Amino acid sequence: MAALQLPRGLCGRLDAQPPPRCAAQSQARTPQRRRHQPALGDGACSCSQPSAGLCPERPLCTERGRSRRRGAGECVRAMADQAAKTDSGVPAGCVSIVLLAGGVGKRMGAKVPKQYIDLRGQPIATYSMQTFAKMKEVGEIVVVCDPSWRYVFEECAERSGMNVPMRFASPGPERQDSVYNGLQEVSPSVALVAIHDSARPLVRAEDVLKCVLDAWDVGAAVLGVRVKPTIKEVDDQGHVVQTLVRSRLWEVQTPQVIRPDLLKQGFELVRREGLEVTDDVSIVEAMGGRVVVTEGSYTNLKITTPEDMAVAEGLLDDMAPKAAAAAAS
Amino acid sequence: MAALQLPRGLCGRLDAQPPPRCAAQSQARTPQRRRHQPALGDGACSCSQPSAGLCPERPLCTERGRSRRRGAGECVRAMADQAAKTDSGVPAGCVSIVLLAGGVGKRMGAKVPKQYIDLRGQPIATYSMQTFAKMKEVGEIVVVCDPSWRYVFEECAERSGMNVPMRFASPGPERQDSVYNGLQEVSPSVALVAIHDSARPLVRAEDVLKCVLDAWDVGAAVLGVRVKPTIKEVDDQGHVVQTLVRSRLWEVQTPQVIRPDLLKQGFELVRREGLEVTDDVSIVEAMGGRVVVTEGSYTNLKITTPEDMAVAEGLLDDMAPKAAAAAAS
Repeated sequence: MAALQLPRGLCGRLDAQPPPRCAAQSQARTPQRRRHQPALGDGACSCSQPSAGLCPERPLCTERGRSRRRGAGECVRAMADQAAKTDSGVPAGCVSIVLLAGGVGKRMGAKVPKQYIDLRGQPIATYSMQTFAKMKEVGEIVVVCDPSWRYVFEECAERSGMNVPMRFASPGPERQDSVYNGLQEVSPSVALVAIHDSARPLVRAEDVLKCVLDAWDVGAAVLGVRVKPTIKEVDDQGHVVQTLVRSRLWEVQTPQVIRPDLLKQGFELVRREGLEVTDDVSIVEAMGGRVVVTEGSYTNLKITTPEDMAVAEGLLDDMAPKAAAAAAS
Repeated sequence: MAALQLPRGLCGRLDAQPPPRCAAQSQARTPQRRRHQPALGDGACSCSQPSAGLCPERPLCTERGRSRRRGAGECVRAMADQAAKTDSGVPAGCVSIVLLAGGVGKRMGAKVPKQYIDLRGQPIATYSMQTFAKMKEVGEIVVVCDPSWRYVFEECAERSGMNVPMRFASPGPERQDSVYNGLQEVSPSVALVAIHDSARPLVRAEDVLKCVLDAWDVGAAVLGVRVKPTIKEVDDQGHVVQTLVRSRLWEVQTPQVIRPDLLKQGFELVRREGLEVTDDVSIVEAMGGRVVVTEGSYTNLKITTPEDMAVAEGLLDDMAPKAAAAAAS
């Protein structure tokens, strides 16, 4: 288990810096810093996954941020040599996952919280953890769960040979408290935090990556899908108040990917003004910050009711042959 | 096949009258009408299902409408003797189903329209038809489909021994045109029209009944479920405009149950003003009429994408043992 709980700062994969506002400003602030060449064993962690080779001594860079989509065009400081970047264009290990697994799952009516219910042979919460662990962009996973359930994640990590550092935080009374607790365990050097609900086991790595890229551009992004049904606003008596314009409505999912500095500022605002937010990027919205909705997949469902279990099983059965075919090709 | 296409007015089950505003007014308008006693063979149709025994000669009645919920307290003319009512309190056969099966299902990528795809051994569209056909409150089913697909419904009706009259209408270019065409085939004497999307195969009879009762009270009701995910309004650039207040949002489904006179008035308004509506009760909303959202079930999903097929299969597998247990008890 010790290998899964490396102290912060020991893993080179986690030393990426969050993108500041502008490369020019970065240069002005750090004129004396030297370019650092990675060397074998230099700041490396004990895990075997390829490291970005980053360390705190190498923040100097003038590369402009990607303007791949929506013409964000923001200046960002490159976080690594091109060689250390993933194919997606962001540094390896620059994302910290905060996996929320502290819910009690009242609506499921089961003896264990919903995220620990067995889904086709393994606990629901471990599906997404395995998906994240295979992504080069992910540098660590912070699991927010009651200490009595830690073994579920530790056993899964051992069994699947997971080589991404894992830490734990305790849940709070409300979702935002759990996110806050998880955030305290995030390495200070990561560029992005991706908060994910462990009751969404079927999230796809390619969708997570798209969301990471959007957050890299803008600062905050959330996976979402276009709302399919007609949505009506209804009053307390059950009468329709209005039918909303469907083309502008998106159902948001997780992960919600945010620059940790933005999230921290947001939490200060939330605590100061006593706000309640149902999702994490709302914190950024509350500050007037920009948030992008990244188009994800309808299969990334949240398991809330017993019917959802049947749905998830149907989807898993449908996905299994496709995954096998992809692996064989 | 001929037995399935009875001409209008031949079936006693369909001769119920829509509830007028007030029993007193009804009495004033129809002072000379005599109470009619049903007799065997009187206005009966050739189907074997118990008939309400209603006929156009028996509109006089002073019974006050149900005020079971929401204190609607409207005066309605009873549509039958107590003996002819179902356990739910509404007359047998007072509802006409308009089953929409004219879609082309572009998003499924299949060779046949989505509603005709095989789902665990039978076409999707025939599931809800069978559910409706077993309800005492349902007096007829009008299927809106391309003539080349009629055989699907006719064969299913024969195979399952369905004894509810069935008629057909042709689809129009838009959903509301199909509804309009279906409405032209509805018997003029029914009290309520329930418009249902045949791509929702798993609708439950108990939910349909609740919706019928609400529409009976208020004039228009639609099945819906509380929105589970967070919904955001997003602009054309993919940026969040606002996060909506979830507690007031309902996702509406079908059936949408409406008094036919209201629906006809609404269509006149829609045509006159060139409105486009995505759902049927919106037509009533456009007239300033009251619409109730009746709480339904999340399992009443609409099959739109290939993923939805897997979901529906999972739900069917989950429902089958429960249905068998209920039948055995």
